[in-house]
Amino acid sequence: MRVLLTGAGGFVGRAVAAALARDPRFSQVRLVDRAPMDWHANGRLEPLVLDLAHQDALATALDGMDGVIHLASIPGGTAEADPPLSRAVNLDATLAMLEHLDARGQSTRFVYASSIAVLGHCTAPVDDATVPAPGMVYGAHKRMVELAVADFHRRGCLDGLSLRLPGIVARPHGAGGLKSSFMSDIFHAAARAERFTLPVSAAATMWLMSARTVADNLIHALMLPTVDGSAITLPALRVGAGELARALYADAALVTYHPDLDLERGFGAYPPLTTAIADGLGFRHEGTLEALVGVVREQIMEGCMP
Amino acid sequence: MRVLLTGAGGFVGRAVAAALARDPRFSQVRLVDRAPMDWHANGRLEPLVLDLAHQDALATALDGMDGVIHLASIPGGTAEADPPLSRAVNLDATLAMLEHLDARGQSTRFVYASSIAVLGHCTAPVDDATVPAPGMVYGAHKRMVELAVADFHRRGCLDGLSLRLPGIVARPHGAGGLKSSFMSDIFHAAARAERFTLPVSAAATMWLMSARTVADNLIHALMLPTVDGSAITLPALRVGAGELARALYADAALVTYHPDLDLERGFGAYPPLTTAIADGLGFRHEGTLEALVGVVREQIMEGCMP
Repeated sequence: MRVLLTGAGGFVGRAVAAALARDPRFSQVRLVDRAPMDWHANGRLEPLVLDLAHQDALATALDGMDGVIHLASIPGGTAEADPPLSRAVNLDATLAMLEHLDARGQSTRFVYASSIAVLGHCTAPVDDATVPAPGMVYGAHKRMVELAVADFHRRGCLDGLSLRLPGIVARPHGAGGLKSSFMSDIFHAAARAERFTLPVSAAATMWLMSARTVADNLIHALMLPTVDGSAITLPALRVGAGELARALYADAALVTYHPDLDLERGFGAYPPLTTAIADGLGFRHEGTLEALVGVVREQIMEGCMP
Repeated sequence: MRVLLTGAGGFVGRAVAAALARDPRFSQVRLVDRAPMDWHANGRLEPLVLDLAHQDALATALDGMDGVIHLASIPGGTAEADPPLSRAVNLDATLAMLEHLDARGQSTRFVYASSIAVLGHCTAPVDDATVPAPGMVYGAHKRMVELAVADFHRRGCLDGLSLRLPGIVARPHGAGGLKSSFMSDIFHAAARAERFTLPVSAAATMWLMSARTVADNLIHALMLPTVDGSAITLPALRVGAGELARALYADAALVTYHPDLDLERGFGAYPPLTTAIADGLGFRHEGTLEALVGVVREQIMEGCMP
């Protein structure tokens, strides 16, 4: 399969690019981002700096590809501060990509990276029957694209699905535009044995997955024998802030809690999650907090290597 | 209230315009359509021929208005045949209207006419917890706008809600672009005591409402003391095709059934419907088949008068 990855320079994008690069099932791996990336071109890898908001860039990016993982996106905090920018990138540029794929008339596997932000503020346990009710611009636009992916799939040339990603850890410290960055920052602080103040309570709950595991899941979606256009909530480990602090820190006294009401409500109140459809299709999360912490520690170590 | 009605020249639009015209709560009633309408301007009524896809037309239409009923839309059959046209009108032009209202920074009551098409093909009984899963371009774009209305409402200047309209009867015979036109055509055929062939079985079920009642509901939404941005499925009378034929025709032998599988599945398989949220807010349907038939007969009679 010849595969295009958008947003390849981002945090999740780098993990997916690395996984694609070492996977022999992919004869060509085109890595697209608006900003220059660290990758070097070789017989299989093709880094391309393009702004997908331009129609000609879209044609260049998609030419010859039979699979797409579409990660490129304005993050949630930035989208909330600048809704027209979110509309331009997260909605319009993505719809333009779907229209381009539809018009060229060859079946293309399209994996859309959606987000649990489409679900909004959930109080009851979440399962595959939960009605998405986005509570931010970002989630609203992600949900709109999910609907578009399903509709293009139904009509023909797109062989698509949407995966709803949970909180992905551990993003680089200071990653911009993310309201949920504390979920990642605590991993980095713990790696340096530094004090950390969580802006949520010890009782706060989050749905987490490592970048490496989400990369596996996105590639699994690319290779599924059949897909039906629908949006699938990925499994995730439901973690309490207090138990995460205890798993990360030998000395739990280094972690203090100063809950911010908005963050607690928006990012620290995730109810129990069941994901029967995703589980049945073979998507997975780390399984245990120990396993998640172990994978993320390895990621951080690798990120520190020259 | 000074109110703008879009799509005022359409079938539902004419019924809403008539109801607004006779309601003294509306000091100014601006009627907008792309095509010339039968209305004459007076101190309160202001017919305007405008294409809302143009930004300057949007500004003209919305200037001075503090309430909007947005009906203008490409119908389902046309949308399915021409998805880019549906995107331009049903999605982009509507998003432009929301952005315009948001930017002008005064609270505007916005009533969006959505559709049960957002629900898609439902087999289980439908209630307020049903996950929308549109099965046509039209329903996908309607659902995308519902999400946008909710998001603009949440963020501030729009005081909006979406109402999901059921099958509205009886549209004029030969109304273009509607796959569900048989639901209306049988009323007209019955009024002339003509033979009619239904493209669904006698066991087919539909959710129906008269144009007059949907106008009452849209105006009720305009006048609700508070709204929360959400999409509300309107109540509707669930009617079997066979019982509708018996209610309309003294001689049931004039009606024959030649079920088309797609139409039966898409428009003749509506499950039981409960609409607790809408009921609690005072929205209503005709209550009985006899009442529905009576209202629609009056509508048809009025349409025949010079």
